[in-house]
Amino acid sequence: MMNISERDNAVFEAGIKLGALYHQFVGTPINVDTIDDLARAIEEGVALQPYVRSISVVIDREMVEKKQNPRFKYCELEGRMLHVSLQILYKNTIAAVELAYDEELDYPMMRIMKIEEM
Amino acid sequence: MMNISERDNAVFEAGIKLGALYHQFVGTPINVDTIDDLARAIEEGVALQPYVRSISVVIDREMVEKKQNPRFKYCELEGRMLHVSLQILYKNTIAAVELAYDEELDYPMMRIMKIEEM
Amino acid sequence: MMNISERDNAVFEAGIKLGALYHQFVGTPINVDTIDDLARAIEEGVALQPYVRSISVVIDREMVEKKQNPRFKYCELEGRMLHVSLQILYKNTIAAVELAYDEELDYPMMRIMKIEEM
Amino acid sequence: MMNISERDNAVFEAGIKLGALYHQFVGTPINVDTIDDLARAIEEGVALQPYVRSISVVIDREMVEKKQNPRFKYCELEGRMLHVSLQILYKNTIAAVELAYDEELDYPMMRIMKIEEM
Repeated sequence: MMNISERDNAVFEAGIKLGALYHQFVGTPINVDTIDDLARAIEEGVALQPYVRSISVVIDREMVEKKQNPRFKYCELEGRMLHVSLQILYKNTIAAVELAYDEELDYPMMRIMKIEEM
Repeated sequence: MMNISERDNAVFEAGIKLGALYHQFVGTPINVDTIDDLARAIEEGVALQPYVRSISVVIDREMVEKKQNPRFKYCELEGRMLHVSLQILYKNTIAAVELAYDEELDYPMMRIMKIEEM
Repeated sequence: MMNISERDNAVFEAGIKLGALYHQFVGTPINVDTIDDLARAIEEGVALQPYVRSISVVIDREMVEKKQNPRFKYCELEGRMLHVSLQILYKNTIAAVELAYDEELDYPMMRIMKIEEM
Repeated sequence: MMNISERDNAVFEAGIKLGALYHQFVGTPINVDTIDDLARAIEEGVALQPYVRSISVVIDREMVEKKQNPRFKYCELEGRMLHVSLQILYKNTIAAVELAYDEELDYPMMRIMKIEEM
């Protein structure tokens, strides 16, 4: 593939991982007691995929508390509850990306934070 | 709702839980090292839902080993890898159900194992 | 399996289908223009599964309109947007069930509506 | 965000869309009769998302035929059945990417095909 650089592939792979984890896990039943185990399971699932250098998943405890159904004591994981920091290492390039809730846009925003070519 | 018994509701709720967990988690990246944590996360997600009395999830290690991509060292969770035993308690009725791979039919079969009305 | 009746199996199968469709499709990007095609695709997916006699899926247009992100003009399918009527035919028993948003409980409620043993 | 180019964002967004559609729709019940409607529904879901210029989804009919359970006449959508061509337009940059089954690696491969900066 002419003209496709390491850098291109690094950010492409980063996008794949964020899109994948979002649509795999959104909808999972969750409450404040299971937040940490679910976050670990998501991290482990992402870490298995090609080129993942590091992954951190934090689920917003306050939002979960607020969303828990008063009768049934749980809710479903939503995209806006997720804070994900991910680094892809593709050959010699590191792409650091993030998924974080953008309150103003009311949207779970995915962003490239930094690209390092070594 | 006339004529709908506790027993009806117990098996109905059991079906809901099996269908839900199947389609929530199938597709998750997995390898032999993450089997146990993913199984726990699935159990915790199911246990939060209404009327669940007990839940046990086992993921077939051999199938995962066989399906792991030789280059990328992971595969995706498939329905046939899942062995789930679930008990629903609806008022005074317990419905015990199971999801297990039926080799002959090549199908992840869901079955009612036992219903106890106390 | 002693003591498990047609009726038990009919409501069990009905539960499986509702749980499955919910967790398969929740999270799908949607707006008012794609509501009908997505509802058809869900119906077709459910209709393929064993023992399904009939299935109707309606997605709440008003909720979608309200939830559409003003900037990006779409939202994600949520359980509370779904109204599903499903009939299972297991041998000679029909189980009619429903998924509908319960405003008071703020919960997408699944219910057995009617069971007919012929 | 210093140093992040249009080109970076275009391929990043392309990755997000492929990862998302894969993990949203894998697992959906399917047979040869519903292939086309499901492919359309996937296309419509993707087309709603930001920066999508074009999307084409083809589901491999032969694989579906081969995988259909002989008794139940359906199977589940798998990643290897998907052939997706996607173009992202981010400001003045077009990123064309693809998801296609790589037989040799036995892996549903996502690739950047072309990047045009206008």
